[in-house]
Amino acid sequence: MPAPDIHLLSVGTALPGPPVDNATLVRRLKVPAVWEQWIDTFIGTHNRHFAVDLETGAVHTTLTDLGVSASTRALAAAGLDSGDIDFIVLGTASPEMLMPTTVNMIADRLGIDNVPTYQLQSGCTGAIQALDVAQAMLTAGPARTALVIGADSCAKHIDLSLNFESMQPSEQVNGVLFGDGAGAAVLSTRPARNSAVIRQVYLRLVGMNREPGQSIEWYGRADRNSDRPAVSEDYKAIEESVPKMAVEVLHEVLDHLDWDESDVDYLLPPQLSGRMTARIRDALELPRAQEVSCVAETGNTGNALPFLQLERALPRMSAGDRALAIAIESSKWIKAGIALEKV
Amino acid sequence: MPAPDIHLLSVGTALPGPPVDNATLVRRLKVPAVWEQWIDTFIGTHNRHFAVDLETGAVHTTLTDLGVSASTRALAAAGLDSGDIDFIVLGTASPEMLMPTTVNMIADRLGIDNVPTYQLQSGCTGAIQALDVAQAMLTAGPARTALVIGADSCAKHIDLSLNFESMQPSEQVNGVLFGDGAGAAVLSTRPARNSAVIRQVYLRLVGMNREPGQSIEWYGRADRNSDRPAVSEDYKAIEESVPKMAVEVLHEVLDHLDWDESDVDYLLPPQLSGRMTARIRDALELPRAQEVSCVAETGNTGNALPFLQLERALPRMSAGDRALAIAIESSKWIKAGIALEKV
Repeated sequence: MPAPDIHLLSVGTALPGPPVDNATLVRRLKVPAVWEQWIDTFIGTHNRHFAVDLETGAVHTTLTDLGVSASTRALAAAGLDSGDIDFIVLGTASPEMLMPTTVNMIADRLGIDNVPTYQLQSGCTGAIQALDVAQAMLTAGPARTALVIGADSCAKHIDLSLNFESMQPSEQVNGVLFGDGAGAAVLSTRPARNSAVIRQVYLRLVGMNREPGQSIEWYGRADRNSDRPAVSEDYKAIEESVPKMAVEVLHEVLDHLDWDESDVDYLLPPQLSGRMTARIRDALELPRAQEVSCVAETGNTGNALPFLQLERALPRMSAGDRALAIAIESSKWIKAGIALEKV
Repeated sequence: MPAPDIHLLSVGTALPGPPVDNATLVRRLKVPAVWEQWIDTFIGTHNRHFAVDLETGAVHTTLTDLGVSASTRALAAAGLDSGDIDFIVLGTASPEMLMPTTVNMIADRLGIDNVPTYQLQSGCTGAIQALDVAQAMLTAGPARTALVIGADSCAKHIDLSLNFESMQPSEQVNGVLFGDGAGAAVLSTRPARNSAVIRQVYLRLVGMNREPGQSIEWYGRADRNSDRPAVSEDYKAIEESVPKMAVEVLHEVLDHLDWDESDVDYLLPPQLSGRMTARIRDALELPRAQEVSCVAETGNTGNALPFLQLERALPRMSAGDRALAIAIESSKWIKAGIALEKV
């Protein structure tokens, strides 16, 4: 028996609170007004959503809330309910707690029980890692329908009492790159009207002997007074490496599928920032493909990003259309891609 | 083509530093000497290993170090090297950082590159979750050989400046239950001399509408001065639920495989504590099965535990022998088991 096709049936997403524009962000971080123009020009991200109220610092939307909202929408769009789900995979870099895992708190709220669940600790390629795990499980059987979620929240990292102006650039940049959000997809071995087939999931760690491009710490009881920076970026290394890595993903996926550049109808490029996404899109040289991006309006939402892009792309695709999403993880350097075809 | 058998080729483990006995632990936690007898009698764990020097508080062995040591031993025992590994799965409740993931730091040190890697955020059923993901990937193909790791370290939670005597019992108990360690296994679609075939991996979240039995927090930059306890246990709920859940796993796995109680030659029961393990073993009523436990000498090492048990069980198994490992996760209540047969 040949392996079954795995179908992406539906996507749902959730963003917390109202959009926060650069003027509001700059005012709240208490940095000079000129930063607004700097973020617009050099980062290229205009809005993002936060799970935290920027006035009070209170968390108004938990990661579980975001995951439940996105999942509920994905299930409704697929015409399924919680009893139809055979297992759940969540990818996140920012779990609410170490234990219980957030995937299990989301399952509880969705009324999904007596199934396996998996939570991946993952960054910007996490959505594709989660889709990869789900695809393998569905291919191996006997599970037939999966809920796959990607979600991130900066809530525990947003310390509004800090002086942003005096930080190192490697820390400052984090204040303006990220946003909070969640996405979810329903995958199944059974096709549905308007579903797309997953043609390949591509994933490669290529971090050997390379310094991490991004580090995010957690503190425990014993080391919470540590001076280690919480989040830091080597933005220069990221700018230099990510476009090259994205081009490698493109060619490796096309070669594997025996597609050529003109076969890609929709390109879902990496979404580090508005400006980086534009540079990567240009490096990919796919003039025929329509770009589907969201980062300028959502910020970099980590594990949620490819779902936000897929939600925009799927309704635009006609039978036979092909889409390629590319994601790059800079922490220890991972290349990832997913190729879809509407059938 | 029928699905290939998945073979467990080898296991390797690593424990940091010398064993710490109850007398030493009680002295270091500055609690009354009577605790030594209390731990012996009511917990039943006599030794554990710590990644932290109990005199200075310094970390002498990182989680990456532990994972690398266990993996190196597992690879050597399988007669394979890093180039033979098609992907890696790590399960841990205590990642070194949020990003980069520990699995990728381990891969770097092992010289494994250009492959997919996955890190599960997981507790006491994490080893079985990681084996489950690996089994699905190997069954789905094209990957043929996997490195699967389970590792945990309490380093960030061991704050020796705290006054243990004044804590709530829900926090105190954590000081005496856990130990640090790692285990690794090589799985392959190709058999080897002395390998065991995985007959079933069983995994079910059963947490709906139940309060978590265990919680482990992490603190970020913004909330690190929070008063929330870092680690807490509802030991009473655990004592009540875990034996029942273990019996359910036993019967569900036996039913699925059409094995009966007398077919189980080796039982690898849950390892919460020496005393709990004895209670669970009695509840399972498998008088013919030889018990393989380690908790009295290693403490509860979380994601490492089933590997520590498998390392002890495999050399004792003869062709045709069957083993069943059971693990229960109390944070949001997960039942897990893995059944093996020596061929």
